[in-house]
Amino acid sequence: MTANLVHDLRTALGESAVVTDPADMAAYVTDWTGSFTGTALAVVRPASTAEVATAVRLCAAAGVGVVPQGGNTGLVGGGVPDSGGDQIVISLGRMRRVREVDPVADTLTVEAGTPLATVQEAAAAAGRLFPLSLGSEGSCTIGGTIATNAGGTAVLRYGMMRELVLGLEVVLPDGRVWDGLRPLRKDNTGYDLKQLFIGSEGTLGVVTAAVLRLLPATPRRATAFVALESVEAATALLPLLREHGGGQLTTWELLGRQAVDLVLAHLPGARDPFPERHAWYGLVELAGTSADVDERLEEALADASEQGLLVDAVLAGSPAQRESLWALREGVSEAQKSEGATLKHDVTLPITALSRFVAEVGPRLLTALPGLRLVTYGHIGDGNLHYNISAPVGDDAALKREAPALTRIVYDAVTALGGSISAEHGIGALKRDAAAAYKTGVEVDLLRAVKQAIDPDGVMNPRKVVPG
Amino acid sequence: MTANLVHDLRTALGESAVVTDPADMAAYVTDWTGSFTGTALAVVRPASTAEVATAVRLCAAAGVGVVPQGGNTGLVGGGVPDSGGDQIVISLGRMRRVREVDPVADTLTVEAGTPLATVQEAAAAAGRLFPLSLGSEGSCTIGGTIATNAGGTAVLRYGMMRELVLGLEVVLPDGRVWDGLRPLRKDNTGYDLKQLFIGSEGTLGVVTAAVLRLLPATPRRATAFVALESVEAATALLPLLREHGGGQLTTWELLGRQAVDLVLAHLPGARDPFPERHAWYGLVELAGTSADVDERLEEALADASEQGLLVDAVLAGSPAQRESLWALREGVSEAQKSEGATLKHDVTLPITALSRFVAEVGPRLLTALPGLRLVTYGHIGDGNLHYNISAPVGDDAALKREAPALTRIVYDAVTALGGSISAEHGIGALKRDAAAAYKTGVEVDLLRAVKQAIDPDGVMNPRKVVPG
Repeated sequence: MTANLVHDLRTALGESAVVTDPADMAAYVTDWTGSFTGTALAVVRPASTAEVATAVRLCAAAGVGVVPQGGNTGLVGGGVPDSGGDQIVISLGRMRRVREVDPVADTLTVEAGTPLATVQEAAAAAGRLFPLSLGSEGSCTIGGTIATNAGGTAVLRYGMMRELVLGLEVVLPDGRVWDGLRPLRKDNTGYDLKQLFIGSEGTLGVVTAAVLRLLPATPRRATAFVALESVEAATALLPLLREHGGGQLTTWELLGRQAVDLVLAHLPGARDPFPERHAWYGLVELAGTSADVDERLEEALADASEQGLLVDAVLAGSPAQRESLWALREGVSEAQKSEGATLKHDVTLPITALSRFVAEVGPRLLTALPGLRLVTYGHIGDGNLHYNISAPVGDDAALKREAPALTRIVYDAVTALGGSISAEHGIGALKRDAAAAYKTGVEVDLLRAVKQAIDPDGVMNPRKVVPG
Repeated sequence: MTANLVHDLRTALGESAVVTDPADMAAYVTDWTGSFTGTALAVVRPASTAEVATAVRLCAAAGVGVVPQGGNTGLVGGGVPDSGGDQIVISLGRMRRVREVDPVADTLTVEAGTPLATVQEAAAAAGRLFPLSLGSEGSCTIGGTIATNAGGTAVLRYGMMRELVLGLEVVLPDGRVWDGLRPLRKDNTGYDLKQLFIGSEGTLGVVTAAVLRLLPATPRRATAFVALESVEAATALLPLLREHGGGQLTTWELLGRQAVDLVLAHLPGARDPFPERHAWYGLVELAGTSADVDERLEEALADASEQGLLVDAVLAGSPAQRESLWALREGVSEAQKSEGATLKHDVTLPITALSRFVAEVGPRLLTALPGLRLVTYGHIGDGNLHYNISAPVGDDAALKREAPALTRIVYDAVTALGGSISAEHGIGALKRDAAAAYKTGVEVDLLRAVKQAIDPDGVMNPRKVVPG
C-alpha cells in the first residue's frame, strides 16, 4: 500500500519531486533544535497548489499522515514527522513566488514557501512595510508563520501573523482546495474560515498561498537601551511609552542581567552600554516617517526618569549603534546555546502579573535545582517571556534530569496567574500533552470537535497540537 | 413539551425573567429595519452567565431553538426569531456590567449586554480609547458587535471587532460554559477558539462576556470634507492619506452627490460646505495626541491638490464645524428613510476595483429600473460601500418588485470583481441563501462542518447564516 503510494506520488509529481533517499531526507526529518528526529516514507516537494492537492489526495486515499513543512525553523517539533516511519513530509520550499504586490490596496499575494525576508524585501521595494519580524526571518516561510501564528519583536504595534493575513488558499485533508485568497478588509459572509487554519500548525490543511496586509514604511527609527531596577518598572513603563509613542511604539523588550551577561560573553564585539551592572534592561523602539520619533522617545525617557522608572538610558545615535543595541537582544538565543543545555519556556502572562511571576517562580526553580541559571528575556509589551533556563555550570545532566519538574513549576505558576504556556511558539509535538493538561475539559472538547470536523480521518499532521 | 419548557425556565430563572405576553415580546421579535417579524415561545432575560447556561441547557434538552439577542439593531434579521413560533429569544440586556478596566494592561472586561457607548465611556474615563464606532453605538451591545464582527467608521485604523477582542466567555449549544476570558495578547495553545464565535451571529453559542483591547486616547482630531471628481480619485487618495497620516489616519469615507442631497433635504440645519455641486465627496479624519494631526492633514490636502486629486476641501476649524461635517456622513441612513423605499447593499470590493464597480453597475441598475436613485456611501478606506438604492420618486412598488433582480445585478458584479456581498452587516436570515449561492461548494461544506461540529443538534439560531 505505502510502496504504491510512493510510486503514485512519483507518477503524479515527477521523480525529482519525491525524495526517499535517507541522506536526502535527513534535513527534513530533524527539527532546528535537534530535539525532534523522525523518519518518513518520503519527502514530497510540490511546485504548485495543484501538486500539493494531488499529493494530499493520494496520501488521504492511502490512509497515510501528511506533515506540512515550511522552513523547518519551529521550536516545538510541529513540522517534522514522528518516529513511526509511516508519514509523508510535504515541503513547500519550491513554492516561493511573490505573485503580486499592490501598493494602492496595500496587499501582497505570496506562495507559502516564500521566506519571510523575501516578503519583507518585496514590500520594501514597493515603498511599504511587512512588519512581521523574527530571528529566523531569513529561513522561515510565510506558510510556516501562518501555520504557527508567528509573533516576534513588532507584535506590540502590528499584532501577530493572524492580524496580517487577509486571505488564504488551503489544501484540505481530502485534497480539495479552499480558495479563500481574497484581498478584502471586510468580509462577513459566514464564519471567517481562514482563522481556523492560522495557528493550526498544519493539523487542518496545507496553506499554499496567502494575501497579506502591507503597512506604511517607517524609515525613521528611534531606539534606546535602558537600565531598570525591576520587572515592575518595565511593566509600569508600558503605558508611559505608549502615550508618548502616539501609535509609533513598535518594540518594548525585556532582558535580565543573566541574558545580557551571556551575550557579552559569547557574541564577538558585544559590549555593555552602561558603566555599571543592572538587574534588568529594556530595549525600546519607535518607528515612523519623521524625526518626530526621536523627540517622542527623548520625551518619554525624560518623563520615565522623572517618575523614577529608569536607572539609566542610552539612545542610539547612529545606525551602527542601533544595531549593536539590537544585537544584545537578538544574540541571547545563540549565546545561550554556547552555555550548555537549555530548557526553554515561551509563556505569556497578563502584563500586570509579570512582575509577580518572575519574583515567585525564580526562587522555586532555584530550590528545585540549585545553580541553574535563569535566562529571562522577551516581549514584555505583549506579556511574553522567553523564560529560559541554562544548566548549572558544567552539569547539563542535572538540567535534563530535572527538566519535567522545572517545567511543571513554570507552567503551574503561569496557569495560576491566568497566563498561557505557549505565547508564540505553538504546541507541536512538544507541548501537546501539557497543553491538554492545563486546559478545561470543555476547551479540549472544542479543539477535538474542530479537528474532527475538518480532518475526520486524521490525515493532517497526526499527533500534533490536538490531544489524542 | 414546550409548555413544560416555559415552566422550567420560569422555575429556574424566576417569573420576571421569562416574558410570554405578546405585547411585551413585540420589541424582541421585530427587528430594527421592520422587515423581519417573527414569533417566539418566550423571551428569556437572564441576569448572569449561569442563568444563560441554564436557559440554553433547558432549550437544548427540549429540542427548542435559541435566538440570542443584543440591542436588536442588526440589519439582516439575525437577532429575531422566525415565524415558526417555536424558538426562544435570549436577550442579554440585563447583563450590562463593566467588570474591570485595567489601564496598564489596556484591557476592559465587560458583560455581553453592555451597550457599546457604555464601553466607550468606561474607556474614556480611564484615559483610554475603545475605538469601535457605529451609528447605533448607543443601543447596540458588545455581545452583538462580537457576534456580527461589527465594523464602522474607524476600521481603517483599528480593524473590526475581531481585532479588538482578546478573550471570550461563551455558553455553548449544550449549555456548558467555555471560559476563554483571558486578557492575553499572545496565546498559541491550539486553535484560537474565540475566532469561531466572533462573527458567527449566534449560530455557535451565546457570548456572555469579553475581554477587550483598549488603545491610547486620541484627544486631538483633524477633520476635512473634500470634493472629488471620481471614485478613482478617492481610491488614489488612500495611499497618500496613509503616508501623510503616519499611522494617525482613522477615517476615509466616501459619499455620492445623491447621498449628500438627501441629507441636505432632510436633516435640519445641514448645509452644503461648498458653493458648487460635486460628483463625489470624502470625509477624512486623523486622530492623535498632538497638534501634529492638523499639520499632517493640511500637508496631505496640499499634496493631494497639487496632484490633481482634489477639487475642493474644507477643514473643520472648530468642534461644531467638525460635527456638522460628520452629520453629512452620519445622516445618510436616516435621510434615506424619508425618501421612500430603500434597497440596501453592504458590499466590499478590492479597493482597486471600486471605481470600476461604480462605473459599471450604476448604468445596469438604471436600465433595469429607470428612475431609481443610487445612494452610494461608505468606508472607502476598507473597500466597503453601502451601495443603496432609493425607489423612483413616488414609486416604492417598482423598487419592491424589482428588488431581487437589482440585488442580483449588484451581487453578480461584486462577485465577478472578487468582492464580498456582506462587508460588515453579516448574513443573518436576509442573505443566507444568497451567500451560499455565491460561495464555492468547498466553502459551503466547511461552513456546514463547523456548524455541525459545535452545534450538532442545531440549537443555536436555527436557519441563520449557514445554508440548510
